[in-house]
Amino acid sequence: MKNKIFDDPEFQKLLTQIIEEQIPFCRLLGMKVHSLEPDSPALTLTMKPELLGNFAQGMLHGGVIASVLDSVAGVAILLKLAQQQPKEDVFSQLREFGLMSTIDLRIDYLKPGKGQSFTANAEVTRLGKRVANVLMTLRNEQNELVATGAAAFMLHERN
Amino acid sequence: MKNKIFDDPEFQKLLTQIIEEQIPFCRLLGMKVHSLEPDSPALTLTMKPELLGNFAQGMLHGGVIASVLDSVAGVAILLKLAQQQPKEDVFSQLREFGLMSTIDLRIDYLKPGKGQSFTANAEVTRLGKRVANVLMTLRNEQNELVATGAAAFMLHERN
Amino acid sequence: MKNKIFDDPEFQKLLTQIIEEQIPFCRLLGMKVHSLEPDSPALTLTMKPELLGNFAQGMLHGGVIASVLDSVAGVAILLKLAQQQPKEDVFSQLREFGLMSTIDLRIDYLKPGKGQSFTANAEVTRLGKRVANVLMTLRNEQNELVATGAAAFMLHERN
Amino acid sequence: MKNKIFDDPEFQKLLTQIIEEQIPFCRLLGMKVHSLEPDSPALTLTMKPELLGNFAQGMLHGGVIASVLDSVAGVAILLKLAQQQPKEDVFSQLREFGLMSTIDLRIDYLKPGKGQSFTANAEVTRLGKRVANVLMTLRNEQNELVATGAAAFMLHERN
Repeated sequence: MKNKIFDDPEFQKLLTQIIEEQIPFCRLLGMKVHSLEPDSPALTLTMKPELLGNFAQGMLHGGVIASVLDSVAGVAILLKLAQQQPKEDVFSQLREFGLMSTIDLRIDYLKPGKGQSFTANAEVTRLGKRVANVLMTLRNEQNELVATGAAAFMLHERN
Repeated sequence: MKNKIFDDPEFQKLLTQIIEEQIPFCRLLGMKVHSLEPDSPALTLTMKPELLGNFAQGMLHGGVIASVLDSVAGVAILLKLAQQQPKEDVFSQLREFGLMSTIDLRIDYLKPGKGQSFTANAEVTRLGKRVANVLMTLRNEQNELVATGAAAFMLHERN
Repeated sequence: MKNKIFDDPEFQKLLTQIIEEQIPFCRLLGMKVHSLEPDSPALTLTMKPELLGNFAQGMLHGGVIASVLDSVAGVAILLKLAQQQPKEDVFSQLREFGLMSTIDLRIDYLKPGKGQSFTANAEVTRLGKRVANVLMTLRNEQNELVATGAAAFMLHERN
Repeated sequence: MKNKIFDDPEFQKLLTQIIEEQIPFCRLLGMKVHSLEPDSPALTLTMKPELLGNFAQGMLHGGVIASVLDSVAGVAILLKLAQQQPKEDVFSQLREFGLMSTIDLRIDYLKPGKGQSFTANAEVTRLGKRVANVLMTLRNEQNELVATGAAAFMLHERN
């Protein structure tokens, strides 16, 4: 029996490559795929000096946090689409990633972004025909909630 | 007669150095100071491959846009503080920059982030005792409105 | 020569009736149409005791402010649609009002909602095929900026 | 042994009276207290014609949803304050309710607000010295997630 696309090792391998190597800004920040589970995928980020917003205090720049939460939201939507609206093949499915775009993003900064590594999770709260909504969280390696986010994305459209 | 701090060339020179060279993530992205006018300061960003969210389409990653809008919002607040609540010297004034933190941030993505250079402006809509609110815009070199933003910041506090 | 729809007195009269009388919650709050100019339409609201969130302090409830800003955003989109994508007749145009829905809304509360009357304005910053973005403001009769807002709306769709 | 304030029946009775009877706009909408549990308090709202944004479709106005989510967020903060920073008596504790104010609010509208009754829950994600952050949800009687929200509040301050 054929794997479902979102469980297909080839799909997961290619999606990991896209995020970690082919999206230039995700690569610049060093985002890594931690889980591609459709209900709560996770990206991780390792602290490095270039990501600091404040050298003295050793805190991530708020823009880094926004970047990883925006990215994990997109991944969550792609996986939900693969689960609920599977395409005929892996490449058609991955193509959806390039056809979605963030409508808007809200980040709540709860704690200073201090830590050695950070995990971003996302949950799709609505997958509509044209628009999807997502809630996100960022935790550090001590499992402290550093930030939460909410985003709306447009689906299936060339900008 | 003594310059007001926000007009003081030394203040402006040091603030420019902080943004362009000393905040690691601002430096990584290549943010430059374009104007330090308190009512509408501006940062600029030049397109480069590492900032792309989508290579094929040549668009800035949404996180880049969030980063520069968050940054210009902080600059706008620092300048308003310098104008309305001047400290005794340049260094005390600049110290306020490290004592503010983003409470939350909303970005509306209006157009794909395509272009050669981008200008981020910010306007402080409230400067309270503890909290400030800011509205931000990002335009490309053709003066197209690429994104708008809204943020709330906490003032004068160590996290 | 035929009027353009957004300038058509019948269109304006019917739209005013819809807002002031036919949308039950707008009527409950007492929203009135002040301007139907497509670039910056305005609704007004008169203070009354039922709208208070805090009796002692005489401030509008935050939900009242969200309600009028959400409403004026929808009016602004309807007028931009009428200006830029005119339908063949007034009724088809007004039907668009029932086919749009708020994706998300952000309100920044800048000053306590004190005053005798309040004016809400909205500006459409993007009118896409499927999604529109709007910025909103609320001012009291002393022209103090009480709140700003940002919203995204879905167009042309039955929920 | 004395009750903790947040468990004190008198505190709970007075807080219920404030929400259901003394805050005029909450009373106008018909908000009722369902739970005063500090980790996830709940308000309920019963559908009635005046709350509709669209008569034909029978949907709550978006502003009604914003109103109840803003209100339940404030209740959640008051209860967390009572739990974590108890005052010497019930009245001092209740006084905090009038000293907090919404900084900003984001609502994501996930499904049309259709149903007979609605339950709003809130969870405080940060209780700082000056600022608190809250996440909120609204569900209808079929337990469908109608909307989510995020808010930041200022504490302990007269506006």
